[in-house]
Parts: sequence; C-alpha cells; structure tokens
Amino acid sequence: MPPSLPTAPPVVAALAGGVGAARMLQGLVQVVPAAGITAIVNTGDDTVLHGLHISPDLDTVLYTLAGAVNPETGWGLAGETWHVMEALERLGGATWFRLGDRDLATHCYRTQRLGEGAPLHQVTAELARSWGVGVRILPVTDAPLRTRLQLLGGPEVAFQEYFVRLRHEVAVSEVRFEGAGEATPAPGVLAALEEAAVVVVCPSNPVVSIGPLLAVPGLADCLARRRDDVVAVSPIVAGSAIKGPADRLLSELGHEPSVVGVARWYARWAGTLVIDRADAARVAEVEAEGVRCVVTDTVMGTPGRSAALARVVVDAAR
Amino acid sequence: MPPSLPTAPPVVAALAGGVGAARMLQGLVQVVPAAGITAIVNTGDDTVLHGLHISPDLDTVLYTLAGAVNPETGWGLAGETWHVMEALERLGGATWFRLGDRDLATHCYRTQRLGEGAPLHQVTAELARSWGVGVRILPVTDAPLRTRLQLLGGPEVAFQEYFVRLRHEVAVSEVRFEGAGEATPAPGVLAALEEAAVVVVCPSNPVVSIGPLLAVPGLADCLARRRDDVVAVSPIVAGSAIKGPADRLLSELGHEPSVVGVARWYARWAGTLVIDRADAARVAEVEAEGVRCVVTDTVMGTPGRSAALARVVVDAAR
Repeated sequence: MPPSLPTAPPVVAALAGGVGAARMLQGLVQVVPAAGITAIVNTGDDTVLHGLHISPDLDTVLYTLAGAVNPETGWGLAGETWHVMEALERLGGATWFRLGDRDLATHCYRTQRLGEGAPLHQVTAELARSWGVGVRILPVTDAPLRTRLQLLGGPEVAFQEYFVRLRHEVAVSEVRFEGAGEATPAPGVLAALEEAAVVVVCPSNPVVSIGPLLAVPGLADCLARRRDDVVAVSPIVAGSAIKGPADRLLSELGHEPSVVGVARWYARWAGTLVIDRADAARVAEVEAEGVRCVVTDTVMGTPGRSAALARVVVDAAR
Repeated sequence: MPPSLPTAPPVVAALAGGVGAARMLQGLVQVVPAAGITAIVNTGDDTVLHGLHISPDLDTVLYTLAGAVNPETGWGLAGETWHVMEALERLGGATWFRLGDRDLATHCYRTQRLGEGAPLHQVTAELARSWGVGVRILPVTDAPLRTRLQLLGGPEVAFQEYFVRLRHEVAVSEVRFEGAGEATPAPGVLAALEEAAVVVVCPSNPVVSIGPLLAVPGLADCLARRRDDVVAVSPIVAGSAIKGPADRLLSELGHEPSVVGVARWYARWAGTLVIDRADAARVAEVEAEGVRCVVTDTVMGTPGRSAALARVVVDAAR
C-alpha cells in the first residue's frame, strides 16, 4: 500500500541534515500542521555496514519526530539496548559505528525493502507511517549519493569514517559528493520546494549536510527561484558550531566560520538568514551580502525553544 | 591474522548439515581430538535476508560445538534475546525467519567480512576461533550454492522459504542445487576427505543437507575413492526422520523412506551404513545394496548418547 499523501497544501519545505534539523522540525510541527511539512533530508551520510543500508540523517529526523529519539545524544533511540553490538564486539567485528538493537531493525527493514526493489523514498514513507510520523520525510534522492572527504595530507574517506570513526578530529582539504551528478531529486522534492510557502534551511552543517542536497541537480536552481521565501537558520553561533565540525570545515575550506561566512555561502539562493542574538553585532555584515537578517534565540535546548525559533522562521518569510 | 591450522593429522572428516550433524560432531569431539576433526558443512541453505548473509548450518554446527546452542531447538543461541525482531515486527518487516540479537551479530560479522572480500571459509574460521571451537569447520564451498525446491503444482522456492516459511508442509517434486556446477570445493575440503582415517556422513537430510555437498564437483568422486572408509549414519529411523522432512522428501522424490532407501542413495560412495536398533530387521536388505550395516542406538538425545554413537561410527571404519 502506498503511503497516504499529505492532505493539506505544503506550507513548509525544510532542507534537513541530522540532529539540528530534527530539532528545527520538532519546532515546526508545533506551529504548522505536520501534514503541511515536507522534510528533504540529506543522504550523503548514508553508508552500508554489515551489509545493512544505514541512513543516519533520515533516521534522526524520523526518530525525533516520532518522539522516540535518545534525548541525550539527539540521535538513536531512547531506552535502546545493545545486545547485537555487544556480541559483535566479542566476535571482533566492526563496532566503531554503534547500532542499537531497535535501531538495527530499521536498517534491516530498509535493506530488505531496497533489496526487493523499493526506492528509498518509498521505504522512508513506510517507516514514517510505522512510526506514526505525519511530516512527509523525503530523502533528497533515491540514487546513491556519498559525501567523501579528502583529509589534509591523508586519504579520501567516506563521511562516517570521518565523522564517527575519526571523530571529525582531522583536517579536511576538499569535500565532494559522489554520485550527485547522476542523481535526480526523489519524487516530490522539487514540487515541495516549488509549492511551499516557506523553504526552511535547517541549522545543519552547510558543507556536509546542506551541501549534498544542493549538489543534486535541480535543487539549487529551484531554491534560487524561490529565494525570497527561503529562510536559512545559521548553524554557526558566535563563531562555533552548536554541534559537530561545521565551524572547522568552513574554515578548512577557506570560508569564515561565522554568520557572515554562512550568509556568503547561502546568498545565491537564500533571501533571509536567521542568526542568534550572540551574533547581533554582525547584522550589517550579513545584510551586506544581500541577505536579510533576523535575530533571535537559535539554540534549541528544549522543544519550547524549538517552537519559538520555528515561529520566527515561518514568520520571517511572510 | 589467519586462523591457526590444526596441529594433528586429520582423523575424521564429517559431511554435515544442521542439527543432526551438530549432535554427531558433539559426540565425535568426545572420542577424537577436536583438532583432528574437519566438518564439511552444507551451504545450500544459506540465504540473504535484510541484506545479511545467513549460513544456518554453519552456525548450528558452530554454536553446538561452542556449547552455546539453544538446547531446546538445537539451533540458535541459548539465552537469546529478540529485541531486533520485536522492533522489526512493529515496523511490519519480514520476521518469519527469526533471528536472535546475538545470532544477528554473527550474520553482521559474516556479511561485513564477505563484503570486504574475505572468502566464506576464512570468515568461518574467524568465527570458530572467536567461539573457541577447535574442530575445523569448513563450508563445502566459498561459491554461492543454493538449494531450490520445485513445489508440487507450485512455484520453485528457495530452501528457507520451504523449510521455515512454509514449515516444509508442502510436497516437493524436484530439488536442484543452483550454482553447484560452477562451484569448487573450499580450500581444505578435498584434502580433508582424502587424508582422514574415517569419513563420517552425519545423520543429516540426504536430499537437502548431504545432497548439496555431493553436488559440488569433485566431492562424490573423492568419496567414492574412499568408499571403504566412508561411514554414513542413517537419518531415517523406523521409516521416519528424527527431525525435519527427510522422510517425506525421499518419498516425494521416489525413494523409499527407510534405511534401505538411504543405503541405496548412498551406496556408490559409502561402504558402511550405521542404522538404529529399531531397523535391525532390515540389515540383510541394507547389505543387499552392497553396503555393510552396523546396528546401534542412533538417536542422540544427550551428549553421552552422541559420544556412544561416535565411538561406534569411528570404530566401524577401523
């Protein structure tokens, strides 16, 4: 049975990475009907491990919207058990990428369905329905898309190798999105971007979370046409990433790790940038990049703060 | 690190399926040094589910020899938990093939290593070492080998589809071993058969457990050359299989489901057939097939009975 289509016209389309995006979406569902929201999610982090197809960002968004995410980490499931990993460790298997027992069921389901020929967007819709999530969650593409990072003076590695195994403690000289050139947007992606009243760029890593989305042919042009309605939230606050290596990656790739650097990076297709009060002194510099600037509290420590930010973001485009 | 080679010359090579074979091997290790035993195990039952490479017979032999098998079923692990399956069930995933959490770790390990390019015999040796099993466990081949059953008046299905999903309650008109023609014996298989003092054919299903082994080019001829030293144990007792559908399969394929039918089936390459006391009246008929017949207790309800049977089997060839 195909998943049911959203009943309301799209109100918000959101470009999403992992934890930061999931919290933004958790805010958006408090101010916009879930059926009016489409999350377009990065799959450049996807990996195959133990033969299982793992989609970390899709799952973080899914588990968060299902209210099932581990509140301490922002990813994985609350109350998770680790029997498979513990046994795999005893076998001397690869356990650097920790997979909880219930989380593994998601990967088993996805891998089996993909193997049966179901495209990723359909499998994702099935999972969302099982979890009772009303937001439409779309992978940016059904095609293989793999973020690869050239380490400074080292080899090129896959995203999870960099992010989890090396704990993003190494310098990067180049990032590329393997398969992006041949990828097409998943069904519904471009329509959601074209029809939404607001396109929200969640406070995700500009390089390795939003970057892969824009690398899929058609996305950036579509956003550029909607520029006035595109509202991005800066993942950089006072020169630092809230979580992860966004600040260092921007810097390593020759960009300023600040709200100004983010404005410059997004200026072609984002008309508005929402920045934190900590960066209020830089509004003029952001606007000098041709980007309207809105100042508010952007750090989402609680669902209430996520909702308050979501309200500002949705209103910013109106 | 490659697994260490057995230190003693091979004493016993055993052709093995699943539960019955594992119990026979559990007996053999009580009467022969483990390092002198090579188990050559059926892989025709192997399947890929959820992207995971599952080798049921290899695992049953492994878990049994590790003393970790579930004593109630004869397969799977004792004290197993089912968190992944329970979560997969909630997702509406395929749960007809029950995989315990710790068992899943084995499949994750195997799939990852195969994906890295390690051949199945090497992965199996690694697992055996992790479990502290001294018997050398070899898959009959590293190549894909898949038992396929033509259902009477129905479709052709894969082995696990027949055995687990349909609970072998359907009639079969034909059995074939896909990939057997192109398969070569795994390294060590032919040498073990040639050098062992005794070749034991465990009381496994002649059609779908021993059948795939013999379908691998070279195996049957090698056994035929060793015919005087090949001792088979009948899996049929008083016209019935101890476990599983061996009796029905023999019958459906036009063979007598009895010790005489087994003798006829094995006569070309097995010089001796060990049968249960329940079939003592049929010794002359077995010997009329040109097969020496040994009568003993063959039902292995306890490790002690397995050891007693193993003693008879090893002595039968001496």
